[in-house]
Amino acid sequence: MEFTINRAAFIKAMNNVNRAISSRTSMTILQGIKLVLDETGLTLTGSNTDISIEILIPVNDDEANLQIIESGAIVLPASFFSNIVKRLPGETFKLTNTAGLQTNIKSENAEFDINGQDASAYPHLPEIEVRNNLTLAADTLNEIIGQTVIAVSKQLSQPILTGVHFILASGNLTAVATDRHRLAQRTVGFEDSDVNADIIVPGTSLSQLQAMLDEVEKVDVRVAENQVIFQLGENTTFYSRLLEGNYPDASRLIPTEKRTTLTINAHDLLQTIERAALLSHEGRSNVIQFAITSEKSLISSNSPEIGRVEEQIFAAETAGDDLTISFNPDYMREALRSFGDEQIQIGFKTALDPFTLVPTNNETNFIQLITPVRTY
Amino acid sequence: MEFTINRAAFIKAMNNVNRAISSRTSMTILQGIKLVLDETGLTLTGSNTDISIEILIPVNDDEANLQIIESGAIVLPASFFSNIVKRLPGETFKLTNTAGLQTNIKSENAEFDINGQDASAYPHLPEIEVRNNLTLAADTLNEIIGQTVIAVSKQLSQPILTGVHFILASGNLTAVATDRHRLAQRTVGFEDSDVNADIIVPGTSLSQLQAMLDEVEKVDVRVAENQVIFQLGENTTFYSRLLEGNYPDASRLIPTEKRTTLTINAHDLLQTIERAALLSHEGRSNVIQFAITSEKSLISSNSPEIGRVEEQIFAAETAGDDLTISFNPDYMREALRSFGDEQIQIGFKTALDPFTLVPTNNETNFIQLITPVRTY
Repeated sequence: MEFTINRAAFIKAMNNVNRAISSRTSMTILQGIKLVLDETGLTLTGSNTDISIEILIPVNDDEANLQIIESGAIVLPASFFSNIVKRLPGETFKLTNTAGLQTNIKSENAEFDINGQDASAYPHLPEIEVRNNLTLAADTLNEIIGQTVIAVSKQLSQPILTGVHFILASGNLTAVATDRHRLAQRTVGFEDSDVNADIIVPGTSLSQLQAMLDEVEKVDVRVAENQVIFQLGENTTFYSRLLEGNYPDASRLIPTEKRTTLTINAHDLLQTIERAALLSHEGRSNVIQFAITSEKSLISSNSPEIGRVEEQIFAAETAGDDLTISFNPDYMREALRSFGDEQIQIGFKTALDPFTLVPTNNETNFIQLITPVRTY
Repeated sequence: MEFTINRAAFIKAMNNVNRAISSRTSMTILQGIKLVLDETGLTLTGSNTDISIEILIPVNDDEANLQIIESGAIVLPASFFSNIVKRLPGETFKLTNTAGLQTNIKSENAEFDINGQDASAYPHLPEIEVRNNLTLAADTLNEIIGQTVIAVSKQLSQPILTGVHFILASGNLTAVATDRHRLAQRTVGFEDSDVNADIIVPGTSLSQLQAMLDEVEKVDVRVAENQVIFQLGENTTFYSRLLEGNYPDASRLIPTEKRTTLTINAHDLLQTIERAALLSHEGRSNVIQFAITSEKSLISSNSPEIGRVEEQIFAAETAGDDLTISFNPDYMREALRSFGDEQIQIGFKTALDPFTLVPTNNETNFIQLITPVRTY
């Protein structure tokens, strides 16, 4: 194997492939990055068994300016090799692996020899039979993930809840996540109404995927039995395993009755919640109160040994019964962030029922739900 | 105690005072920031017993716009109070402590009550009898600290070497630090040749001081029996305790003979050293080699289980004997950084003797010395 390549273009691909590589894996070969050079170009692969990422740098890519001298394959220690490539002096570098596993990396006057592993020992990526596929705008997928992944469970004791549930049916894609304390649900329409699927994608996979969505316009999503593949542009393929099991029916958790409603800018309320959380985080119980009357609305938190905080908020509109409710400010904070600077309506039934946050301009397709804390 | 103040101006002073405050101290009151309000203004104090910082926000400061309603004093939990002030909504805030230790902080609609401690229980700052004082340009002091503090020992087992030794005599200020593996020494002249002093200032104090030197032009240095005071501008006072004991005589460590010399740009050599260190850091012994001949000079590192790196460097001038020497790249890296982008001369005696780095434009007043590693 022997090639020269533009260093910046290589680093860009390598950084994305590295998202799938963990130095903590027990399989030594998966601590490596696989390089395969053939007539189509140079393919980089990284995997942690949950996620695999494969990027082709094609032979005709102007920026990469790949010059193939001899095809071949090698697995190099990902973190060490990445640090070397990032520190090389020149605009291009040459990689040579002619005999055995020792690989030479040369750029201007600097020359490294490092030990690789046999590429034939690298696990094969899943060969999948595609059942369904769907093309989405990358920024739509980015938004859906950002709005729902906040609510996945961090408890490995309820594995199914560590994923986001995607339902494709009747021309709608619905994503929902819940950790039993809160729930996030977002629906978007898509054109091809023949596609039907029901999958649970690990939240950690989606967070890694999200970081790569800025670079492309369209994502082709392909669903197989226990894998989902996100094809980003022509050359980047992101594989994630799916979680197996039945996801609880989320729709019945969402209350239909609203006895108290309050309309407010999400960003303004977020600032107030973050101030109140300063106090609740110092105290023993991380709880803040929301008191709503027809005259005024107050956010407060009280912790005898620490102190007290109180702030009046100014809603655009308040309607219905007076109410005092307690909740975890961290759930509220993450929910509010998902609305950006939008106007939202918060709807309450009683102090013991979950309450909902919806954007006033799209009440049916996006909802955040939070379960209150009982303080008495 | 009651006042209103511009929030940004208060935060600027508070951030600097917080440099002296540690949440890990066993004295609870030193986890607090002391506020004293009298007719001269508002004084903030923080201390960890090694370092104390006192900043006066004077009553006539236009930016702070301090309005004194009632004088008084309180100690507030530094980290919690700082987070509150940083999150307050308004441009100004009001702090009130009228009875007992509960303190009210109000800005626009947000209102906090937090528990303070009695200011009379706060330790007194050392009252010192000044023996010597000296005024230095802040950027000169900044440079001297940056060039020497890198060589202080991190080993608490040799406490005297954790400080920088400052000698003021005959119109010269010499700063020297060594951890027995390397040494850094810098000399500057000053005008008042009557000042004589010999003090050892903890490296940690100097690093904190350094971060505050950008904000002022001049520093007045006052030396007392076991304290040094750096007066930054009119309103900021930085106290540090001194280390007690006899600092070893550093001058005899510096070799006078140079059998091999090499002149090179410090920044260029730094890049090469950082590449070689990638390999030495992965290997078991963190050592790199420097081979100098009249034809060419090579930096290399070799670690059988990891690999090999080699890079030719291009010196502006090489003179004297051929030489191969081994050293710790981390010492070399920190030494090279202290020269910035300057041309330096590296002078060697033998492969077993310490070697020196000096700027070619100022060979006598600034020296970095590194002890080689014996590899055979």
